[in-house]
Amino acid sequence: MTTKRTVVASPASQTIGWTREFEAPAPRVFEAHTDPDILPLWTGPAGTTLEMREFDARTGGCWSYIVRAGNGEGWAFHGSFHEVTAPRRLVQTFEYEGEPGHPNIEVIEFEDLPGSRCRLSGLSVFLSVEDRDAMLGDMDKGMDENFERLDGLLAGR
Amino acid sequence: MTTKRTVVASPASQTIGWTREFEAPAPRVFEAHTDPDILPLWTGPAGTTLEMREFDARTGGCWSYIVRAGNGEGWAFHGSFHEVTAPRRLVQTFEYEGEPGHPNIEVIEFEDLPGSRCRLSGLSVFLSVEDRDAMLGDMDKGMDENFERLDGLLAGR
Repeated sequence: MTTKRTVVASPASQTIGWTREFEAPAPRVFEAHTDPDILPLWTGPAGTTLEMREFDARTGGCWSYIVRAGNGEGWAFHGSFHEVTAPRRLVQTFEYEGEPGHPNIEVIEFEDLPGSRCRLSGLSVFLSVEDRDAMLGDMDKGMDENFERLDGLLAGR
Repeated sequence: MTTKRTVVASPASQTIGWTREFEAPAPRVFEAHTDPDILPLWTGPAGTTLEMREFDARTGGCWSYIVRAGNGEGWAFHGSFHEVTAPRRLVQTFEYEGEPGHPNIEVIEFEDLPGSRCRLSGLSVFLSVEDRDAMLGDMDKGMDENFERLDGLLAGR
């Protein structure tokens, strides 16, 4: 089954809202977002590896990783875990080190659905409409690719 | 000298922007925001004390305190330090525990001005216009009171 992500990104708004359903219960999908051994298995574009530097997924913790390409290039990201309340809510800040001073905050709610499924509802809030617009496109599409990799992982593939 | 804070809070926006000048260099004002022994001396409404629970002001750290009234009532707040780059930029998340699920992110830039003065430029971004509107008023006025207390502290009063 293909599950599509719905995205709401109104003009002149500085937020991106999205929902995405998964064929697994919320606790498993929450774990995939917060376990440093599982996150690298589904995060990052095809052909890259995720080099974890720090990853302390608890309220008040922080995280840092590099998306590493085969040719050695890398893109570094880091942020804080404002709230980690398993298996319901995850609130993180997120910054791309190539664009310092432009962090965003993302709230993801994990909701159980019948049939051992779940729905994630995400809201990313940026410092400005411009920052939000810059994220739409490639980065946002990257989330779809990541979630497809996660589908496979959850299905045991 | 009375220094007034300029505030920009446009209708239908989810941000509050502000600037405020101080009669001290940026490093001293930055320190007042990040030293757990100094912060309680100027933070919180008259008649309250600041009970520090956790305060690790470094990139990736977190903070937590209770504003305690004389009658024992208290209001708890906590957040993460997304970035602490002394003496230039401070980026924190902020949540009032009486309203869980409604954090905001605040970026404060500290800029030196001639004559051993400095200017703080702040941008608070909320999850929604409603959250932003709820913060305007009492909480925002509280910032003016805090800054007046800080003026006194910086002047050695």
